[in-house]
Amino acid sequence: MTDGALLPAEPAIDGFWAVIPAGGAGTRLWPLSRRRSPKFLHDLTGAGRTLLEGTWDRLAPLTDGRVVVVTGQAHADAVRGQLPDLGTDDVVAEPSPRDSMPAIGLAAAIIERRDPDAVIGSFAADHVIRTQGEFRDAVREAVAVARTGRIVTIGITPTHASTAFGYIREGASLAVDGAPQAREVAEFVEKPDESTARGYLAEGGFWWNAGMFVARASVLLDALDRYHHDLAAGLRAIAADPSRLDADWAGLEKIAIDHAIAEPAAADGLVAVVPASFSWDDVGDFASLSALVAAGSTSADGVTVIGDPADVVSVDASGLVAARGGRLVAVVGLGDVVVIDTPDALLVVARDRAQDVKAVVDRLKASGRDDLT
Amino acid sequence: MTDGALLPAEPAIDGFWAVIPAGGAGTRLWPLSRRRSPKFLHDLTGAGRTLLEGTWDRLAPLTDGRVVVVTGQAHADAVRGQLPDLGTDDVVAEPSPRDSMPAIGLAAAIIERRDPDAVIGSFAADHVIRTQGEFRDAVREAVAVARTGRIVTIGITPTHASTAFGYIREGASLAVDGAPQAREVAEFVEKPDESTARGYLAEGGFWWNAGMFVARASVLLDALDRYHHDLAAGLRAIAADPSRLDADWAGLEKIAIDHAIAEPAAADGLVAVVPASFSWDDVGDFASLSALVAAGSTSADGVTVIGDPADVVSVDASGLVAARGGRLVAVVGLGDVVVIDTPDALLVVARDRAQDVKAVVDRLKASGRDDLT
Repeated sequence: MTDGALLPAEPAIDGFWAVIPAGGAGTRLWPLSRRRSPKFLHDLTGAGRTLLEGTWDRLAPLTDGRVVVVTGQAHADAVRGQLPDLGTDDVVAEPSPRDSMPAIGLAAAIIERRDPDAVIGSFAADHVIRTQGEFRDAVREAVAVARTGRIVTIGITPTHASTAFGYIREGASLAVDGAPQAREVAEFVEKPDESTARGYLAEGGFWWNAGMFVARASVLLDALDRYHHDLAAGLRAIAADPSRLDADWAGLEKIAIDHAIAEPAAADGLVAVVPASFSWDDVGDFASLSALVAAGSTSADGVTVIGDPADVVSVDASGLVAARGGRLVAVVGLGDVVVIDTPDALLVVARDRAQDVKAVVDRLKASGRDDLT
Repeated sequence: MTDGALLPAEPAIDGFWAVIPAGGAGTRLWPLSRRRSPKFLHDLTGAGRTLLEGTWDRLAPLTDGRVVVVTGQAHADAVRGQLPDLGTDDVVAEPSPRDSMPAIGLAAAIIERRDPDAVIGSFAADHVIRTQGEFRDAVREAVAVARTGRIVTIGITPTHASTAFGYIREGASLAVDGAPQAREVAEFVEKPDESTARGYLAEGGFWWNAGMFVARASVLLDALDRYHHDLAAGLRAIAADPSRLDADWAGLEKIAIDHAIAEPAAADGLVAVVPASFSWDDVGDFASLSALVAAGSTSADGVTVIGDPADVVSVDASGLVAARGGRLVAVVGLGDVVVIDTPDALLVVARDRAQDVKAVVDRLKASGRDDLT
């Protein structure tokens, strides 16, 4: 599923730490992903490793194991269980979700105390990257640029006019040793409509924002201090005295890193982008998962299968079947259908309606079936 | 589901016995119907009674409990379990399937010994009839005609130009007391193509052949003796000495009652038809089951449900969901879809491809998954 194992071992990057925010319910991937067991804990693609484990596999060699995972208190034990090589202090358990800035910022503040010169890179726990060599090259470039004092984002080469992602508009080329691709970021733009997205692709110089940020921990926190002083001070205070976490956390500003730092810092000319062409997917819904799995996996008579193809019978059908219920699944006469079979819930959805799975979860919550969400 | 319970009790018909052939695997209703647990043993429509129990409920009051069920040896215990009021000698267990004539003929021969003047009526265990009053009226007429020495079939009023059933072409009206509708049968015709079927409906005087035959047991066996002497003799010999059943059964001719008696006897002018307009369905496939259940049952947001509607969430979907797996079933963005969820097998099929469910069962057999068929 990944080509990581085939690459020769490479030396880790000195002073580089990875932060893995492991949050989000993955509602549009219900019933594979649940509130109590979100998608990062699952081997969604059938790769043999969970998304979190895959993220660790990518980052541990680059950091020599210097990895900090930030997750909800409810998931801390599951994270430790999946990543036994993670140190005891390397799981930060959030008392409640307060969006990405407090999560990543707290990890940065903790790392800043351990290693004041640390460069950190933040990479979500639930993304899939298939071309590890190109990923590593991009991270090395980003770290080189980060050492010059900038906040760096890795820009994904758009493969289509997606309206599901924000875009990064590139500025002038930067002359940084070891980072030939690096450029200034002119601006971050919100998720566009489709014609705007098509315009971006035609014009060139636009990259998908995958939320990958690389910077010195101190640079990141100093920038936060400039734009959201109380939040930066609060995070540094918790890092200095972790016993304050439970009491102070709920009082911190709830905000995404894009709004808190990336956008204002870009406006101030402080952000760089390293464009990269590795294969990337945020596995946002079953249409995305279908495409991902179809690209590399087993199939039964035209239907792509997650699980054992021997458990699936397909007659004149196409689409995706996840056979995770321990039962036989038969699909007859349906095209582009997604069937997700789990022990306590079954989903059948037209692939082009994958976004509407969220409505099922909403319906379950409204009808008191929280146990299934 | 049935209006039987609402009718006033009616006297049974003197000397009338019911024969219920309970056979067939119901392959096109997989996975609700299985080889080891065929459809007649199931409450397919969610009526609260199995198809077999529903058949008993219709016939026991008309016969004062004079009912004989013929079924495979593998199903005899299940039949006794569902029909506790059936006498010990009233289940005839076939050593192997030999089509409908040996099954019905053996029951006729057994009844003939118990009651030489008996009129028997044969009614399949897996049909659904919703208008009990009209059914009873038709049976009373058929019995009245049978007492005149004819073999009588009950003809179902066609509701559409079906190609799934054989047809009965009526002949001249018969002047029988108590049977004003009765007519001669001109001929039985095989399942027609669609334009022929449309012609039958336009012309009038054609009825669906539902395989319901009413006759004196002795008349039926004497007719069989005329057209298939060895079979009639063999059946009467087993009835006289039931210990011969296992040894003699496999040597009997394997043939359907339509070919063995109905067609040649019609050609000889010995068969009558009582046209009837009760609602009837042979529940041949999921398209048929969908229509049946939709007509009288619960639904969840546009989807017809067999089972508990609270177990089904439907978003912009239509069709049939059988929630028999003990799990939540969610259907999103699919029209006219059939989802059949059971503990060990799941079927998802486009309603207009209901006939192709047989291909799944064939595939399972071919791949050694007989346990699921």
